[in-house]
Amino acid sequence: MNYRMIAFILGRVLLILAALLFLPLLSALVFGESPLPFVVTILLTALCGGALLLVKPRSREIYAREGFVCVGLSWLAMSLLGCVPFLISGDIPHFVDAFFETTSGFTTTGASILNDIESLSRSGLFWRSFTHWIGGMGVLVFLMAVMPMSGERSMHIMRAEVPGPTVGKLVPRAKETARILYIIYTGFTVAETIFLMFGGMSFYEALLHAFATAGTGGFSTRNASIAAFDSAYIESVIAFFLVLFGMNFNLFYLILIGRVREALSSEELHRYFELIAVCIGLIVLGTVRHYGFAQSLRHGFFITMTTLSTAGFCTQDYMHWPAFLQTMIVILMFIGGCAGSTGGGLKLSRVMLLIRNAAADVGRVVNPRRVNRVQMDGKRVTAETAGAVYGYVALVMLILLGCTALISVDGFDFSTNFTAALSCISNVGPGLGKIGPSGNFSIFSSFSKIVMAITMLFGRLEVYAMLILFIPSTWKRR
Amino acid sequence: MNYRMIAFILGRVLLILAALLFLPLLSALVFGESPLPFVVTILLTALCGGALLLVKPRSREIYAREGFVCVGLSWLAMSLLGCVPFLISGDIPHFVDAFFETTSGFTTTGASILNDIESLSRSGLFWRSFTHWIGGMGVLVFLMAVMPMSGERSMHIMRAEVPGPTVGKLVPRAKETARILYIIYTGFTVAETIFLMFGGMSFYEALLHAFATAGTGGFSTRNASIAAFDSAYIESVIAFFLVLFGMNFNLFYLILIGRVREALSSEELHRYFELIAVCIGLIVLGTVRHYGFAQSLRHGFFITMTTLSTAGFCTQDYMHWPAFLQTMIVILMFIGGCAGSTGGGLKLSRVMLLIRNAAADVGRVVNPRRVNRVQMDGKRVTAETAGAVYGYVALVMLILLGCTALISVDGFDFSTNFTAALSCISNVGPGLGKIGPSGNFSIFSSFSKIVMAITMLFGRLEVYAMLILFIPSTWKRR
Repeated sequence: MNYRMIAFILGRVLLILAALLFLPLLSALVFGESPLPFVVTILLTALCGGALLLVKPRSREIYAREGFVCVGLSWLAMSLLGCVPFLISGDIPHFVDAFFETTSGFTTTGASILNDIESLSRSGLFWRSFTHWIGGMGVLVFLMAVMPMSGERSMHIMRAEVPGPTVGKLVPRAKETARILYIIYTGFTVAETIFLMFGGMSFYEALLHAFATAGTGGFSTRNASIAAFDSAYIESVIAFFLVLFGMNFNLFYLILIGRVREALSSEELHRYFELIAVCIGLIVLGTVRHYGFAQSLRHGFFITMTTLSTAGFCTQDYMHWPAFLQTMIVILMFIGGCAGSTGGGLKLSRVMLLIRNAAADVGRVVNPRRVNRVQMDGKRVTAETAGAVYGYVALVMLILLGCTALISVDGFDFSTNFTAALSCISNVGPGLGKIGPSGNFSIFSSFSKIVMAITMLFGRLEVYAMLILFIPSTWKRR
Repeated sequence: MNYRMIAFILGRVLLILAALLFLPLLSALVFGESPLPFVVTILLTALCGGALLLVKPRSREIYAREGFVCVGLSWLAMSLLGCVPFLISGDIPHFVDAFFETTSGFTTTGASILNDIESLSRSGLFWRSFTHWIGGMGVLVFLMAVMPMSGERSMHIMRAEVPGPTVGKLVPRAKETARILYIIYTGFTVAETIFLMFGGMSFYEALLHAFATAGTGGFSTRNASIAAFDSAYIESVIAFFLVLFGMNFNLFYLILIGRVREALSSEELHRYFELIAVCIGLIVLGTVRHYGFAQSLRHGFFITMTTLSTAGFCTQDYMHWPAFLQTMIVILMFIGGCAGSTGGGLKLSRVMLLIRNAAADVGRVVNPRRVNRVQMDGKRVTAETAGAVYGYVALVMLILLGCTALISVDGFDFSTNFTAALSCISNVGPGLGKIGPSGNFSIFSSFSKIVMAITMLFGRLEVYAMLILFIPSTWKRR
């Protein structure tokens, strides 16, 4: 293992984090709040990053293993350093709480332990929402967009950080790909901010909600989340942008360069829109008597998108909805956004591959002589990719059950524990029961909060980059 | 597809069912109850069976497809005809209820819609428990034990009915294998009956509980299930026999023919005993303050075995236990017994393969150049077997979520719906929430009862034999 190169990259990640922290620092200055929390964190982060840069790599070679370790360590370090401002300002005085909240931010989960969000300093809230934006596209992708590295090497890092069963290289050079992704990401964020301001939000709140939408995170500036604004327009803008941020970013690139037909022929995209339509239909069906048609459509669109995209904003307490809609919400939590989006969950294309694999398996068992080929977008899926999907889903299920078991020591009911674990591994935010839209994660013990924070990292980094840190052989010298 | 041969085998299955119905008929005569329900059912079943035998197969060739269809149709027919006695006697007057209870019996699930079990006729109760015994080892295995068929053909049927990732042929001829399995099965049932009578049970109750233990079903003759006897001895006898019936029957055969060392070296067996020990330990840990050590050990042994073997007898209402034990119970419901046992669930060896596959996948992703081989009992597991396990687990998860979604239209909470679906697909019986040890399935609508009955059949027949009936191409003439 090329430890020196890992230290080198980790150092750069921390320097970028330090640079990104200037934005909340600026907000502190604008709002006349103490800049101290951010100044101290910037110095601390820059110091750690600078120290790591002193390690000079003898070789710049990195392989898949190093890629995973880099990403895993970077995200752990970011979560640990990112919670320092909350500790210094006293916004979140306890370390475990601050660590949970920050990890929830970076992983774009949006699960909160805060009972009174509105009591936080405005710069603290800014940083909290900004972590969603940083985590959504990934800080290492950002690093690649700005750092000179050869293509093949950096693809290992990109593969470890960008979600989905396969990483499509948009252009031959990873650096260009990363840059294009960030340009689209920033463009949409700016557009959403403007649209939200038209709805009467201040620039500050519009920007923070755009951050949370872009990363499909779900942190709000209000205790009542989006319900506080009680505006069909604002809900529609957020839901519309969640549709976009839940899509594969490669499609936007294809549209940008004029290959619209190719973009629109994506099978995952078709299933995505069909799924959205079906879920809205079911919510309307289940709630039309209570809300009336127009309102049930409004809530149907918003809750479908906030759950499927794994943002987890809240407007309506669906714990009062018919039970079949709660089951639907749990299933949407499993599925999540499209591959290559900022959404969490298993990703729609994986679920599609899972179902097609299973169907092909049934075919094989039932009729061993027929050859059943799994296809996606008209191309044959290799046995390797198909097997990898199975393996990934199996790992996620094992982690889901493991997390459920560990946090159940706190004594809450099975619904709460299971959906809390699912919410963490899928990076959603709320769940059912005590952590439904009207509850939060402050009820859990410190032990459970740490378990859940780690589970969120497992979810955001799609297991492997986190798991590798826990495998002893990773750290053995050969 | 060789329809004529399928009709031929189905006809024989029904004749065997008619023959087996003479036992409850005998019990009706002994107890002075009306023999009519059984006489009518015997005539009806024999008539259907006889009619099917008129179809003369042109060829005796059957392949995997025909094997699955035979098994699937046989089990559906058994469940439909098996509920007739309950309807005629008025023990269970509604068709859907009777179908649910009978399917729950044959599939050895043991989920009940009866609020007052003790109000049933004694011959009705006899038949109810006897269905567990018939379903435990499988009526087609029984057919093979008594019917002259060539080895290769009948293995297709055996493979479709005997649970587990692979079917070990004990001896070259399937007929002999089936006979040996039934001899061991009957021997243990007789032994348990005698042991239970030592504990003060009447012959009738001892036999019925032995039936339910042998099939790892879980129907009792009492409303309070095993708790009604309040006897540590009876609980220990049942739990001990559940340990045996949850083991791979091949091991008993190996022991019988003196290959004890080979039997005891089974990895699945080691994990089975370790798992039992760990679960008992956790239950003692969680309940010792409430029960004291001796009692917590007693309940720990019983609840571990009744859940892991998927029998689902009740003594203690574990809904009052600490939450982590409820999570443990859910995980045990997933796992189930060993392959080749009468227990349900995914089967322990599949879970072992799943975990080893996943570990090997992690290894491959992390270090692509290293070859990671999955082993079991010292032998390398082929990629085909490993892939089949993934596919099977994926199918079970899809059915589990599908069943949860469908039954959630009744409006119960997520815990109830999810564990009811899990209980059905794993053939356990009780679950959490409203269908916990102190509840039952009578709360559900007819629609949900039918969905759950089909789910039980999916679980008992390990998906494929049931699924094939729903695939249109199965019924297309070529």
